[in-house]
Amino acid sequence: MTVEIQHPDDKETPTRGTRHSFPLDRWYVAALSKEVKAEPLGKTLLNEPVVMFRTEDGQVHALEDRCCHRFLPLSSGTVEATGLRCGYHGLLFNGEGKCIEIPGQDKIPSRAKIHRYVVKEQDDIVWIWFGSEITSEPANEPPPYPIHGDPRYYFDGDVYHYDAPYQLVHDNLLDLSHLGYVHLKTIGGNAKIHMNAPMEVTQDGESVKVVRHMLDSAPPHTYSAAYPFGESIDRWQEIVFYPSHLEIWTGAVDHNSESVRDPQRGGFHMRGFHGLTPETEESCFYFWTMASNPSSNVDEIMEKVIAQTKFTFDEDKEVIEAQYRNMKRFPDKKSIDIHVDVAPNRARRIVSSLIKA
Amino acid sequence: MTVEIQHPDDKETPTRGTRHSFPLDRWYVAALSKEVKAEPLGKTLLNEPVVMFRTEDGQVHALEDRCCHRFLPLSSGTVEATGLRCGYHGLLFNGEGKCIEIPGQDKIPSRAKIHRYVVKEQDDIVWIWFGSEITSEPANEPPPYPIHGDPRYYFDGDVYHYDAPYQLVHDNLLDLSHLGYVHLKTIGGNAKIHMNAPMEVTQDGESVKVVRHMLDSAPPHTYSAAYPFGESIDRWQEIVFYPSHLEIWTGAVDHNSESVRDPQRGGFHMRGFHGLTPETEESCFYFWTMASNPSSNVDEIMEKVIAQTKFTFDEDKEVIEAQYRNMKRFPDKKSIDIHVDVAPNRARRIVSSLIKA
Amino acid sequence: MTVEIQHPDDKETPTRGTRHSFPLDRWYVAALSKEVKAEPLGKTLLNEPVVMFRTEDGQVHALEDRCCHRFLPLSSGTVEATGLRCGYHGLLFNGEGKCIEIPGQDKIPSRAKIHRYVVKEQDDIVWIWFGSEITSEPANEPPPYPIHGDPRYYFDGDVYHYDAPYQLVHDNLLDLSHLGYVHLKTIGGNAKIHMNAPMEVTQDGESVKVVRHMLDSAPPHTYSAAYPFGESIDRWQEIVFYPSHLEIWTGAVDHNSESVRDPQRGGFHMRGFHGLTPETEESCFYFWTMASNPSSNVDEIMEKVIAQTKFTFDEDKEVIEAQYRNMKRFPDKKSIDIHVDVAPNRARRIVSSLIKA
Repeated sequence: MTVEIQHPDDKETPTRGTRHSFPLDRWYVAALSKEVKAEPLGKTLLNEPVVMFRTEDGQVHALEDRCCHRFLPLSSGTVEATGLRCGYHGLLFNGEGKCIEIPGQDKIPSRAKIHRYVVKEQDDIVWIWFGSEITSEPANEPPPYPIHGDPRYYFDGDVYHYDAPYQLVHDNLLDLSHLGYVHLKTIGGNAKIHMNAPMEVTQDGESVKVVRHMLDSAPPHTYSAAYPFGESIDRWQEIVFYPSHLEIWTGAVDHNSESVRDPQRGGFHMRGFHGLTPETEESCFYFWTMASNPSSNVDEIMEKVIAQTKFTFDEDKEVIEAQYRNMKRFPDKKSIDIHVDVAPNRARRIVSSLIKA
Repeated sequence: MTVEIQHPDDKETPTRGTRHSFPLDRWYVAALSKEVKAEPLGKTLLNEPVVMFRTEDGQVHALEDRCCHRFLPLSSGTVEATGLRCGYHGLLFNGEGKCIEIPGQDKIPSRAKIHRYVVKEQDDIVWIWFGSEITSEPANEPPPYPIHGDPRYYFDGDVYHYDAPYQLVHDNLLDLSHLGYVHLKTIGGNAKIHMNAPMEVTQDGESVKVVRHMLDSAPPHTYSAAYPFGESIDRWQEIVFYPSHLEIWTGAVDHNSESVRDPQRGGFHMRGFHGLTPETEESCFYFWTMASNPSSNVDEIMEKVIAQTKFTFDEDKEVIEAQYRNMKRFPDKKSIDIHVDVAPNRARRIVSSLIKA
Repeated sequence: MTVEIQHPDDKETPTRGTRHSFPLDRWYVAALSKEVKAEPLGKTLLNEPVVMFRTEDGQVHALEDRCCHRFLPLSSGTVEATGLRCGYHGLLFNGEGKCIEIPGQDKIPSRAKIHRYVVKEQDDIVWIWFGSEITSEPANEPPPYPIHGDPRYYFDGDVYHYDAPYQLVHDNLLDLSHLGYVHLKTIGGNAKIHMNAPMEVTQDGESVKVVRHMLDSAPPHTYSAAYPFGESIDRWQEIVFYPSHLEIWTGAVDHNSESVRDPQRGGFHMRGFHGLTPETEESCFYFWTMASNPSSNVDEIMEKVIAQTKFTFDEDKEVIEAQYRNMKRFPDKKSIDIHVDVAPNRARRIVSSLIKA
């Protein structure tokens, strides 16, 4: 805003990044549907402050989070039937970012408008398009996530804010061998089995898939709480990475009861959606849902599944934020790769090439 | 202080502004009289750390907030009959900034002195002179504010610290149309009436005056609580801006009972003093008092007036600090003016020309 | 760490100092022995993040606080019999900094190692060597501190973190005249006596010694609480500064009962060890112990001595941190020396010449 504020030194203005630090011309997760309610929802995404709101017709809209008049964040305003009203002088903006009312003034200047983001709500997820040009329109549809509409599954989820770059969360999710150390108390189970399970890593364009099977292992606490397993189970972990999100399908059947390679396998399933959207270069939002298929006591078991998932993700967040703080204390050191880094490194190369493009 | 402290990088020293970021050769409010009591009072004003204290003779003094020996802030020292004593090694400074005692040392070096600011206490306000040269003496008297001594009025006040530049508070006070949105619950009343009331804006040298009348409007909560109004009132708002402070005279009479243009009008009066003194380029102190003329139940009504005023000013502070945080998130965007900006823009032009001068 | 994190601006990486801001090729205090227990202990020393841990054989080890794989701080890992295991993927490091296990991987790359610091535990103090070259080995033994093993004395201590450079604590400890103002309520006693007591300052290489005697003075609270003094005492204060620590031997005998210059004098003794280790240019750790010689009610008196010492050191910390904050508000001003600055200034010259060397 260019009212005459004197700064002692331009360097005091926080250095701001741009969307161009990240892969563009694609959809990112902006919110879980359940987040966009009666109140406006403000978030910085890819370095840009965005406000989301839902009009009376049920549509979700996303605008620049700034009144064009005196720059109050519109996320501190109020949602009305047809738009979002600023809490300072009452300017009203519609879903296209156009100011449609200036209280006490007849004429609305044509410049009284703010940037409108393209959003699409689909599968209980609000997706937002970030193009390489700020005005570019979507070139495709958001990725489908049919699990949220699949009658076999129940799901819930949450949003975590990370004081760490989104790619550190990619690393973490693509490498489930950390379960044995970080998540010993919950989904971990036997550390050695985790570390020794062979991994199949394949790449398909912008996507990386990791498959691991851990046969004849002890059921971890979460699993036992949710499903009547015997003493030994065969577990599978299938991770699919996309630049905007990961899908992680884990589960187990009783040991030797059926093939863990059969996509129609039964047993206990946990299907995680993990949307990672940069907030800035140094922070991100982690939108997740966990879907499962309890055969009885659904409410109770889903409550346990979600509680355990949260507990686990809290453990991850603590580790990853500590990791990032420490990375900044050692800016000049190089890291050593180990066997678990194959998939994370492929994902990093993909993201890196998308940024350069 | 030039003891040998090693800094890894000069940039780590916080970038400091100077008084020259602000209009100079004028008086600013340094404190309300009631703030300067038995304890020393430290504040940064126009980027300069100042300590104020009152000696036994009742005089208020203002010094650089720094012992010349080892730089302990004198505001953490103790006030004595004739000066201010440092809490580290006991050096005693008089109101002129001269060190008059070094415990354990007979000779006091002539260099043992610190900067003395010119302050003048008048009308229950402590004014401080900031010249374009640090040693320059006042060229005039502080502005009078006789309301504080007027027997018809009772008043009280407070000091708010803002994490926002002082000019954003100017904007806010010069544009009372925000009352309908920001202060709906207190002094607001009907938003449309506020926004549609015609404004008369006049300028006289460094001063801007705004007059608005809102006839036949519903009495807001604050007014009804303080005065036995009927169902409809005629309100006036008279705002006078000076670079160092604003005077806002608002009030009401019962609808059509007498002229709101008569300076001798009766009814309910609220006369606000609003001293805005920059702390830094990005923060300020807001010294305010509110005077009123209740005809009965004085204590009770004044308590309500002050409580409602505080509530209102809390609302303003929240909005303005949010605005400033958001301005910094959009450093490159330009603002759009609307009808309410006439007076604020004149005030900005005045301040801007005073800084250039 | 050089995974591909994009920074909007290199300046966002915090400016990091190096060990070369401080005197090198010497031992610093890294910890009191009692700090190194079952959990790993992380501290930044001379700008370098260090983790300390004690293996089953009782040895204390110190490593770079960083897993070579993904940079999780090892101080958030777990101590095992023979080493320290990372909490992310379970890499195990021995006391030499060599990775001796990568779970799930047979071959351990030779590059999988981190910096090992030379530490030596002696007299209940853990000393760490900082050489001018990172790999340089100690050229001498850590300084002895036999008081901790002397059967005549009982001691306890603590570690304080200071948001102030270590040399400001040197200044404070070398100048006991501040007792009369900062510590009036505890060890202070009469301010004028403190300030007027003659000081003998002598230098011997890198060491500065200050001796003061305060004859015929009133016993301060701490002393009276710990020892059955009469109405008047003869006090001594002997301070010896070394670049890594100070030894302060204070105490008192009943007035005129024996010579305060006799090293074999009786009475009440307080022998302080004060290890000052820079954390960064702007912060430090203050490791202290206080030893005393109560003749009866040992537990009760030692508890009082330690409690009073803590109370006193809390007062110092408050003053010194306020001083440093204020020094940064006046970056361009020069300080004035007074009579108490002789010894602090000598110590500063020693440190300064050691840094240049």
